[in-house]
Amino acid sequence: MTVEFISVGTEILLGNIVNTNAAYLSEQCAALGLSCFHQSVVGDNEERLDEAVRKALSRSDILILSGGLGPTKDDLTKEVVAKVFGKELYEDGRTKERIQDYFRRVHSDQVTPNNWKQAMVPEGAKVVDNHNGTAPGLILEENGKTVILLPGPPNEIKPMFERDIAPYLNELQPEGIYSKMVKICSIGESKAETMVADLMDEQTNPTIAPYAKTGEVHFRVTAKASDEEVAEQLFAPLLEELSRRFGDKIYTTREEVTLEAAIVSLLEEKKMTMTTAESCTGGLLAGRITNVPGASNVYKEGYITYSNDAKERLLGVKRETLVQYGAVSPQTAKEMARGAAKAAGADAALSVTGIAGPGGGTPEKPVGLVYVGCYVKGHVRVEEFHFTGNRDKNREFAVARALTLLREELLGTK
Amino acid sequence: MTVEFISVGTEILLGNIVNTNAAYLSEQCAALGLSCFHQSVVGDNEERLDEAVRKALSRSDILILSGGLGPTKDDLTKEVVAKVFGKELYEDGRTKERIQDYFRRVHSDQVTPNNWKQAMVPEGAKVVDNHNGTAPGLILEENGKTVILLPGPPNEIKPMFERDIAPYLNELQPEGIYSKMVKICSIGESKAETMVADLMDEQTNPTIAPYAKTGEVHFRVTAKASDEEVAEQLFAPLLEELSRRFGDKIYTTREEVTLEAAIVSLLEEKKMTMTTAESCTGGLLAGRITNVPGASNVYKEGYITYSNDAKERLLGVKRETLVQYGAVSPQTAKEMARGAAKAAGADAALSVTGIAGPGGGTPEKPVGLVYVGCYVKGHVRVEEFHFTGNRDKNREFAVARALTLLREELLGTK
Repeated sequence: MTVEFISVGTEILLGNIVNTNAAYLSEQCAALGLSCFHQSVVGDNEERLDEAVRKALSRSDILILSGGLGPTKDDLTKEVVAKVFGKELYEDGRTKERIQDYFRRVHSDQVTPNNWKQAMVPEGAKVVDNHNGTAPGLILEENGKTVILLPGPPNEIKPMFERDIAPYLNELQPEGIYSKMVKICSIGESKAETMVADLMDEQTNPTIAPYAKTGEVHFRVTAKASDEEVAEQLFAPLLEELSRRFGDKIYTTREEVTLEAAIVSLLEEKKMTMTTAESCTGGLLAGRITNVPGASNVYKEGYITYSNDAKERLLGVKRETLVQYGAVSPQTAKEMARGAAKAAGADAALSVTGIAGPGGGTPEKPVGLVYVGCYVKGHVRVEEFHFTGNRDKNREFAVARALTLLREELLGTK
Repeated sequence: MTVEFISVGTEILLGNIVNTNAAYLSEQCAALGLSCFHQSVVGDNEERLDEAVRKALSRSDILILSGGLGPTKDDLTKEVVAKVFGKELYEDGRTKERIQDYFRRVHSDQVTPNNWKQAMVPEGAKVVDNHNGTAPGLILEENGKTVILLPGPPNEIKPMFERDIAPYLNELQPEGIYSKMVKICSIGESKAETMVADLMDEQTNPTIAPYAKTGEVHFRVTAKASDEEVAEQLFAPLLEELSRRFGDKIYTTREEVTLEAAIVSLLEEKKMTMTTAESCTGGLLAGRITNVPGASNVYKEGYITYSNDAKERLLGVKRETLVQYGAVSPQTAKEMARGAAKAAGADAALSVTGIAGPGGGTPEKPVGLVYVGCYVKGHVRVEEFHFTGNRDKNREFAVARALTLLREELLGTK
């Protein structure tokens, strides 16, 4: 079955907001096994909305509209759809009560008159209660087509979709799509894609597709199946093949697991603690590690050593080293890592020192030059990087490479 | 003049990525004074793309397509547009050289054969160099219509648009839209919006509209004018009025200035240094401050004191305080701030201690409870917060509140 999305709202056309609803709905509907070939945005204009609705119904089985269900005169979605189907609007008593109740609960206020139009419902439509706002969702089934109207605000549309729309659509289209996210580090994107080029070409169910992620390579593996058990059976051979090709470079196949979470797990397994000493990344590396709930089991303290003086005082980096080689050098990165581990009494430590830009570069040490030091139980490894992005990107990449380095060292492989 | 956008890419239809290009292009084009009534997404399908292009050209003056310019067989945009215009494709020697050069510089590699199709150009098209990737942009002018083809990746499309496309469009449509972003802190969103409700209703040129930002309130003030000078004249009375109403809660009217940049400027002005001591925010606060190029003038070192032991050893927080009041308490936040300032020899310090969640909460100290301490030249102020988001949101809010607190203290106002 095909589904099409129309996002209603002039603010989207003006670029005032990013259309996250479209991405959310597409992803949800794809997972439900529905095919989508068209998505569009229309402003708060009766004529253009009418045209878009008719066009969509001429080519898709299901049409989902979001937005334009509010109390203002610009909110037209319901009126236009009712007109296209030749339906009258009537006041739904139950919805009117819910709106009154919502105002009392959330705004401690009387309902302003313009809100009543949200209680008007097209004849024959199924009303979907809104538990996070005033405008109800609506489902119309007519002439073999289904039209679903949903409120615009993301915090209203998502709970409504999960609670009521997804089950409804699942009845229409029982076969679903299941996916895993194979996350790989320690290898470049081009190389990784070359290694799966044959699979990307040949595989039809499941399919494999690359996903962008700073400093990592992600492949989404997607299977069309009647239920999760069948999907797992379809996944198994492809996942085994990927495992054969990438070995322990794969750190998870679960979408929600981040590299930092995988590292915290590794440390917990090995009963090890870690620390960080950051210069140019200024806290972002520690920020990623402490993203992980329970990081406090393995991470107790960290250092942001922006100045040379801080590197000496907090980490014991030798002045001679800083004078002879400079703050941005493999020697300093090494001493920072060792010094941090010692100061924190930790088993492992990551250090980052570099030139994020835009200023600070020289011909010998240009912007983008970063050294990462990794100390694990007495042994220190230092890697040199030459990033080519802006300040933000260089810092982001440095953090990603540091985490990857630590994982390699913890696994005992290169 | 009307502009229409078509985003090309099956990954958008599948909801695998959020269509940020559409929002970016809409916003840029609105600022250039172009009207947009249609936006759509089409997959990597020749027939549907052909139909969409023809439809767009039938109703809009300018068509901008993003995506589908890459080296794979799924990349069709250029081929389809050339066909619609009846143009042949020829190999552009200069573009071919640029692609070769890019591969040498960035990938230290030979160009794989499939990349050569990116050097194919429709007859009569203007080639727009890509300084961040391989596929050039293209501009075709035919029968009073303009078609612009841009690469999909956001980090390629944005620089190209700013450098070459915006000036080109500005020639087509000279009257533009100018805007300022009035950024306000130290006041809640509801209160701020109430304070400008009359302006939002009455103002037509310039207009004022609210924008979401964690822990801050932003108002975009937009003027339609023939040039920047006229725009500034239109802005002046409204900006004065906002200044009268919000005083120094406004930290900038420039879109690119962040709260942390405003704070670093304040510190530089006052010739002061600062430090940070973070527990639950784990480096994110320092990360924001070090976002600012030149932060090293005012920020020399910082501490991530995740464990009680780290709070004692690095910051001198008294054991009795930790035992009696706990790590998450105003007393500990105070000692952390004082201790950090002393340890770093800094004039100002921010401390954050709290329970980000999802675990760690108790009835007395629930998830979301955060204390922020702010030390400025001998005086410490502590604020208590009760955040109600998830782990990420709570940490984000804590960082935003901490920065706001420091700004208030530096300005000497509450």
